[in-house]
Amino acid sequence: MKEYNSFLQLFLKHLDNYKAGISHKKPNELYQPCNYMLSLGGKRIRPLLALVACDLFDKKPEQALNSALAVELFHNFSLIHDDILDNAPLRRNKPTVHIKWNHNIAILSGDALLVESSKVLNNYAPSAFKKLSELFHATATEVCEGQQQDMNFETAKKVTTEQYIHMIELKTAVLLGCSLKMGAICAGTGKRNQDLLYDFGKNLGIAFQLLDDYLDAFAASDSNFGKQVGGDIIANKKTYLLLKSIELANAKQKREIEQLLLLKGKNASKKVNAFLNLYKQLSTDRLCYEAAGLYTNAAIASLQKVKASAEKKKVLMAFALELINRQA
Amino acid sequence: MKEYNSFLQLFLKHLDNYKAGISHKKPNELYQPCNYMLSLGGKRIRPLLALVACDLFDKKPEQALNSALAVELFHNFSLIHDDILDNAPLRRNKPTVHIKWNHNIAILSGDALLVESSKVLNNYAPSAFKKLSELFHATATEVCEGQQQDMNFETAKKVTTEQYIHMIELKTAVLLGCSLKMGAICAGTGKRNQDLLYDFGKNLGIAFQLLDDYLDAFAASDSNFGKQVGGDIIANKKTYLLLKSIELANAKQKREIEQLLLLKGKNASKKVNAFLNLYKQLSTDRLCYEAAGLYTNAAIASLQKVKASAEKKKVLMAFALELINRQA
Repeated sequence: MKEYNSFLQLFLKHLDNYKAGISHKKPNELYQPCNYMLSLGGKRIRPLLALVACDLFDKKPEQALNSALAVELFHNFSLIHDDILDNAPLRRNKPTVHIKWNHNIAILSGDALLVESSKVLNNYAPSAFKKLSELFHATATEVCEGQQQDMNFETAKKVTTEQYIHMIELKTAVLLGCSLKMGAICAGTGKRNQDLLYDFGKNLGIAFQLLDDYLDAFAASDSNFGKQVGGDIIANKKTYLLLKSIELANAKQKREIEQLLLLKGKNASKKVNAFLNLYKQLSTDRLCYEAAGLYTNAAIASLQKVKASAEKKKVLMAFALELINRQA
Repeated sequence: MKEYNSFLQLFLKHLDNYKAGISHKKPNELYQPCNYMLSLGGKRIRPLLALVACDLFDKKPEQALNSALAVELFHNFSLIHDDILDNAPLRRNKPTVHIKWNHNIAILSGDALLVESSKVLNNYAPSAFKKLSELFHATATEVCEGQQQDMNFETAKKVTTEQYIHMIELKTAVLLGCSLKMGAICAGTGKRNQDLLYDFGKNLGIAFQLLDDYLDAFAASDSNFGKQVGGDIIANKKTYLLLKSIELANAKQKREIEQLLLLKGKNASKKVNAFLNLYKQLSTDRLCYEAAGLYTNAAIASLQKVKASAEKKKVLMAFALELINRQA
């Protein structure tokens, strides 16, 4: 999104300064993994949202730079620890921290990064500092809760789509809402605008994840979607598509699902195709897409109510829609 | 220490309320391990120091309760993660969190407890909140750094006693200083009193750890010392005694130390006795005890300069000396 390129450059410079600062800190074994993780790249959506939200009220985005840094550091802490939990060897085609170093270093450098994420808010004056810290830590708790729920779902016998949506709200969506609201707090706008932007971000996050589930199964092979199509199906991941299909399946279809979940290894493409057929039979492909649409609409409705420049809101809306419609 | 019993009871009631509050929170898998760890007991030295410091300036210790809770939650977070790093099966004769549940739950519930430790400061007004948070997070970073240094020492070829003392300062001592200073901030006393109490706690913490090293080797078997005498020697732990002995040993003694470090299993008592003889030959037993004395004196000197009730300072001094002289 070219309109936001200046914000992105502003943030990346701030991040580089921060990384340069910790690169000298000892012990190396604690700070190098943090620096490594922060250097793996990414779209920097969360910090971008913080800067954009601040700018929305015609305040200098620089005011939100440390909030933007806090959410990005927190996000990277969660990636370091999640990669341990998921036993993931790679992130962005590079070895994860616990592989490149070891488990202990990954645990401890993640802890250090979590503490750092609180500390970069120190630059704010006491009143803003307190508001930002309270929101930030409340959100951090929710992300931990969402991550634990996600782990619980792996072995749970029955997970409803409501439970699933609540999990993705906590694990993914609230941090987007938090990023926007922190930017709004930095701009000094009122509580109503802050909360509307939070809801915008949260609903957008849920829509994003639902569409991610959809695209993992149905993205065209020539799309911008950055992952292997069918990966969730192969891994038996309890996505909205699978959970909704289980809810709607008749006895015969339920048995088919149970059989398909047992398929492994070289039967992968057979498994993917069978699930795709089932999703279409049960219309869960459409239901998933529609659910994402409902949350997108809720996000749009919240943003419309925000009292800010109509022009800037339009750009933010376009950015949000581009973000969730990655198959376009 | 009977003078502090009312403070301890006050804190334990506050901790019980906190535990009751999180016992209902979902998911259980995140909060039950936190509650379990917080229920394993302990002397609650850190929270006690926060309350005592606040009372020292004739302010209600209740004002420091949430600071006391923050340091205790942080301490328990560090225990959960340290037990993973150390692969420890037991703490206070109970299974550690990663054994009772699993590694992933221990990582994530530790993370949640770390976030919680920041959140319990929310009750303070913005100005105090900011001062407390800044100190608390700066200390949290140091504890992580100390823990990483300690891990580095396990495989390091050469560790000096200066490096060792710096490590225990970070890993153990600064949190005692932080606890006292947070109590002083809650009391609203000036910066000089805050910093003197911080130095008191920090030096006390270093003295405590040095005496712990000494007692691990030389405590009388009928003493109050709660651990197996010689445990550090058997585990080849790089204590002040071992590091100072390596520094002072001649070539022959160095070779003896290298040989002894290779002894394992059923040679434990031979190994312990040989090291004890060596420590006496090299006078490192006396040097360790004297070093502890120097830090104790520095602690006393700082406390003496604090502008507060002489009577209350005397009680705090007695408590501090009782704490470090556990073999008495």
